[in-house]
Amino acid sequence: MAEALNGLKRTMMCGEPREEHVGKKVTLMGWVQRNRKLGGLQFIDLRDRTGIMQVVFGDDVSEDIFEKAKGVRGEYCIAVTGEIVLRSAPNKELSTGMVELKCEDIKILSESETPPIYIKEDLDAAESIRLKYRYLDLRRPDMQNIFMIRNRASKAIRDYLDENGFLEVETPILTKSTPEGARDYLVPSRNYPGMFYALPQSPQIFKQLLMVSGFDRYYQIVKCFRDEDLRANRQPEFTQVDLEMSFVEQDDIMALNEGLIDHVFKTVLGHEVSLPIKRMTFAEAMNSYGSDKPDLRFGMKIQNLTEAVKGVDFKVFSDAIANGGSVRCLVVEGGASMGRKDIDRLGEFVKTYKAKGLAWIKNKEDGIQSPIAKFFKEEEMQKLLDACSAKRGDLVLILADKDSVVLQGLGALRLELAKKLDLIKDKNEFNFTWITEFPLFEYSEEEERYTACHHPFTAPMDEDLDMIETDPGKVRSKAYDLVLNGEELGGGSIRIHDAKLQERMFKALGFTEESAQERFGFLIDAFKFGPPPHGGLAFGLDRMIMFLAGTENIKDVIAFPKNQNAYCYLSEAPNIVDANQLEDLGIAISVKKEEE
Amino acid sequence: MAEALNGLKRTMMCGEPREEHVGKKVTLMGWVQRNRKLGGLQFIDLRDRTGIMQVVFGDDVSEDIFEKAKGVRGEYCIAVTGEIVLRSAPNKELSTGMVELKCEDIKILSESETPPIYIKEDLDAAESIRLKYRYLDLRRPDMQNIFMIRNRASKAIRDYLDENGFLEVETPILTKSTPEGARDYLVPSRNYPGMFYALPQSPQIFKQLLMVSGFDRYYQIVKCFRDEDLRANRQPEFTQVDLEMSFVEQDDIMALNEGLIDHVFKTVLGHEVSLPIKRMTFAEAMNSYGSDKPDLRFGMKIQNLTEAVKGVDFKVFSDAIANGGSVRCLVVEGGASMGRKDIDRLGEFVKTYKAKGLAWIKNKEDGIQSPIAKFFKEEEMQKLLDACSAKRGDLVLILADKDSVVLQGLGALRLELAKKLDLIKDKNEFNFTWITEFPLFEYSEEEERYTACHHPFTAPMDEDLDMIETDPGKVRSKAYDLVLNGEELGGGSIRIHDAKLQERMFKALGFTEESAQERFGFLIDAFKFGPPPHGGLAFGLDRMIMFLAGTENIKDVIAFPKNQNAYCYLSEAPNIVDANQLEDLGIAISVKKEEE
Repeated sequence: MAEALNGLKRTMMCGEPREEHVGKKVTLMGWVQRNRKLGGLQFIDLRDRTGIMQVVFGDDVSEDIFEKAKGVRGEYCIAVTGEIVLRSAPNKELSTGMVELKCEDIKILSESETPPIYIKEDLDAAESIRLKYRYLDLRRPDMQNIFMIRNRASKAIRDYLDENGFLEVETPILTKSTPEGARDYLVPSRNYPGMFYALPQSPQIFKQLLMVSGFDRYYQIVKCFRDEDLRANRQPEFTQVDLEMSFVEQDDIMALNEGLIDHVFKTVLGHEVSLPIKRMTFAEAMNSYGSDKPDLRFGMKIQNLTEAVKGVDFKVFSDAIANGGSVRCLVVEGGASMGRKDIDRLGEFVKTYKAKGLAWIKNKEDGIQSPIAKFFKEEEMQKLLDACSAKRGDLVLILADKDSVVLQGLGALRLELAKKLDLIKDKNEFNFTWITEFPLFEYSEEEERYTACHHPFTAPMDEDLDMIETDPGKVRSKAYDLVLNGEELGGGSIRIHDAKLQERMFKALGFTEESAQERFGFLIDAFKFGPPPHGGLAFGLDRMIMFLAGTENIKDVIAFPKNQNAYCYLSEAPNIVDANQLEDLGIAISVKKEEE
Repeated sequence: MAEALNGLKRTMMCGEPREEHVGKKVTLMGWVQRNRKLGGLQFIDLRDRTGIMQVVFGDDVSEDIFEKAKGVRGEYCIAVTGEIVLRSAPNKELSTGMVELKCEDIKILSESETPPIYIKEDLDAAESIRLKYRYLDLRRPDMQNIFMIRNRASKAIRDYLDENGFLEVETPILTKSTPEGARDYLVPSRNYPGMFYALPQSPQIFKQLLMVSGFDRYYQIVKCFRDEDLRANRQPEFTQVDLEMSFVEQDDIMALNEGLIDHVFKTVLGHEVSLPIKRMTFAEAMNSYGSDKPDLRFGMKIQNLTEAVKGVDFKVFSDAIANGGSVRCLVVEGGASMGRKDIDRLGEFVKTYKAKGLAWIKNKEDGIQSPIAKFFKEEEMQKLLDACSAKRGDLVLILADKDSVVLQGLGALRLELAKKLDLIKDKNEFNFTWITEFPLFEYSEEEERYTACHHPFTAPMDEDLDMIETDPGKVRSKAYDLVLNGEELGGGSIRIHDAKLQERMFKALGFTEESAQERFGFLIDAFKFGPPPHGGLAFGLDRMIMFLAGTENIKDVIAFPKNQNAYCYLSEAPNIVDANQLEDLGIAISVKKEEE
């Protein structure tokens, strides 16, 4: 049975009725959350996007209507008409809990089979089932709330950028494969057999071209694609807030984006971001937190003990220092009470970051306890404790190795300790920081050449220009990331707009004139015609929504996500296609190497 | 030479200075439109997104600065600082023409080679050159204006829909191929070799699922894809304004979209759309205009002469009628003066629409002139002229054949005459109409079965439900198109939300239960769980912008369009890819059949 509306109009949403509406006759439409009999009355909890309303059928309705009401089951879609009345027993947990609908008529708009998952908050069902029945999973109020947040955030972003003179311009989805970066998704061309489009990993080149075109300020909320093995919180298609500005320098871009973030957090959460957002150089972030996206909601900085332990007759330390490495530590306040097993587990943990072993010192009330104490003279030990300001009761955790291993290991250990020891007190804190002065190049052992940390169009810092040829590893760039609670929220850079500098950059990256032209030709060409100084930034919208919605799973913020294998349980994509479709495209399925 | 900004800030845009700013010191940045020497002074016209400003260098600046100013050439990107002063000779053609910038300093931000196309309005260069140097083509003020219009229109759409409770929800780009409809673009999967994603032709199924999820009102401005042979004004990727609403009927959706269109035209053009927009049934549109997207900016309806010519001894007419066809005409007011050659050309024109020949009658002041007059008795001729109200001086153009040929032929002829005779007087008119009551099915001679005119989820009209099995060709649907000046601006329908009716629909379309499940399985499954009554609409955004911007070329409204072969001259996509990319995907390039 599916009744038609036949002119019946919804006059209110389920979450709206309040005491002020008592006496009003309304029509609500939605889904049956619950239907129960109580004291000769029939009670239906009716749910829509806005909330739940109690609907009651008494003995003043006709037998027909009462029977119909009795017959509806969970997730039936119905329309009810009646008068809003005060509830004798208010329900404080519902926003509509002071009133109920005294129902006069009911239409069953459509019936429902018993749903395979419960439509309720904090559902704990297998992910594959939730994704297969995504349309039911999305009925849950907490899921709907996430998409209302996402909608509000997108709107706030657009309003702010519009207000600030940005033009939304759409860039192509069917474009050209650029061999730099991650793996592209390819799309075979029918008109040019054997040729392929690529789905964009970002609109980087197009947005720079728009600056060359004089669009001045561009933005787009746009899908990007990467055919990578999916780690947690990655999806093959993801959404970027992408923007670019002309005639500006780094500070202008940072200020504008601080305003954007503030506007979004204020609009969606009522949260005021304290501006300006603090800044930290890449070097400081690495030295103090072992990460270019430090979580600053707690302290426990990495401290350098290299000077303090010079001369100590402990081979692990002295070898590390002799090889150009360092000795660094974290001081865990009050950590001296930690048990041996827990400390051993931390030792195992840092091994996954290539650290060979974790040295530890308990600065207990009754003296030092440490497996390495024996290598230290008493004053040497004191010097170490002083150097890192370890107080009585503290635990010192030490790594000695080459810098990269020590910093990465202690950085990861710091985060692990924060979890274990519950160091983040305010779960609602949003701790923003800019990371600046990123290195321009990084040396790729694999390719035996320098590669661009950001991309080859990122401008070097003026102070470091002279080192591009002589000491590329030391050149810092005009790149910046916005970090929130230890996650990268977005990043960007000032771009090179000087053709000569761009040439030097390509040379430093090991491109010949020909290979640079082949890969980036149309941008290089464009830069011959008066490119303006410009720069930009891109935010990961999915991650921003995760913060705004307070969820740690990216699948929660994407309406129809894919699993770790980029498979959609709902639509069953990817799937086989007709042979003639492939024939049209001039391609054939070959057997993969490992299957031969 | 490329100077850095080094802290220099732009304080005004080039199009902004007015008399009220005289005496103000400002910095402008932009591109050199023109640089000329006049009476010992150097004049630079400086251009940015907002307009052009005259910059003048006199003998009060240093030799250095003067020389630098003299040296800049067209499309150099520069920054100039100086005082706004009154112009001795105002230029009425520029919005800034009352003032000029008395320049004190100039920075050359970047130089430019001589551009291969002129940066000026109404450019007339080869399309391939314009597309290859798109970034220069986009510098033209008329192109920039189009993208400002596009930006304003998109914003207006979002504002209106947000105001009306719609949630923007993103649907997947990597999804499943559905063999109905146009040809899909495919994306090979790396995780599942031999399987493919498809790029969506529209988010139809996902937006219906969102209604099943209780999202209530959804919208998205979204890229869609069709791998079709491109006719003029088609692009392989295009943008849709896609929306869907629950708990509504046809009139609700039409009213909401009328409000949307009015808001957009008002915001962008200041044009008030007269609401409600008039409606016409599909049957009337076909009978009176020979088209389901009639251009109502001029009259000249198709008139039916079938009754009037019954009994006339003219085999072409009597055969057509005997075979179930008809005799219909257009009356061209004052057309009797048209020359024989022009009429012959119209005859050739209708032949391209399968009409066998065009009969004509000139109702001249001095009597009838017509090659078919000899078949008519005098009173029969008078009866015909009366039937179509042809006055003295008019020309009657007649087709006789089966209905589809007659209507299509006269419909096309009507548009051709409007062009030839310049019948559309007000070029700025926006003549909107809804077309309603579309047929639900159309018979496919090729497939020897009925197919869905719109798509298989479109609801039939309640009055016609009984004919689904008995006379499907007569069943009308709850589908509607919005037509503007003879072009389809958008279309949609009320969807079936009754599983039983959907079953009848699939059966009528020749699907078995299995084949329906295979193709639309996840939507059919979803409809088992209380789907709400719902319907929606999609606008072609590109076409809407063409109207708003007054251009007839879709490439003008897309920043980086492709050509008729879906090729991008700028990025040179599609292109070859590395062999290992294909290997990763488990596909190989095969030779196309015709090339074997």
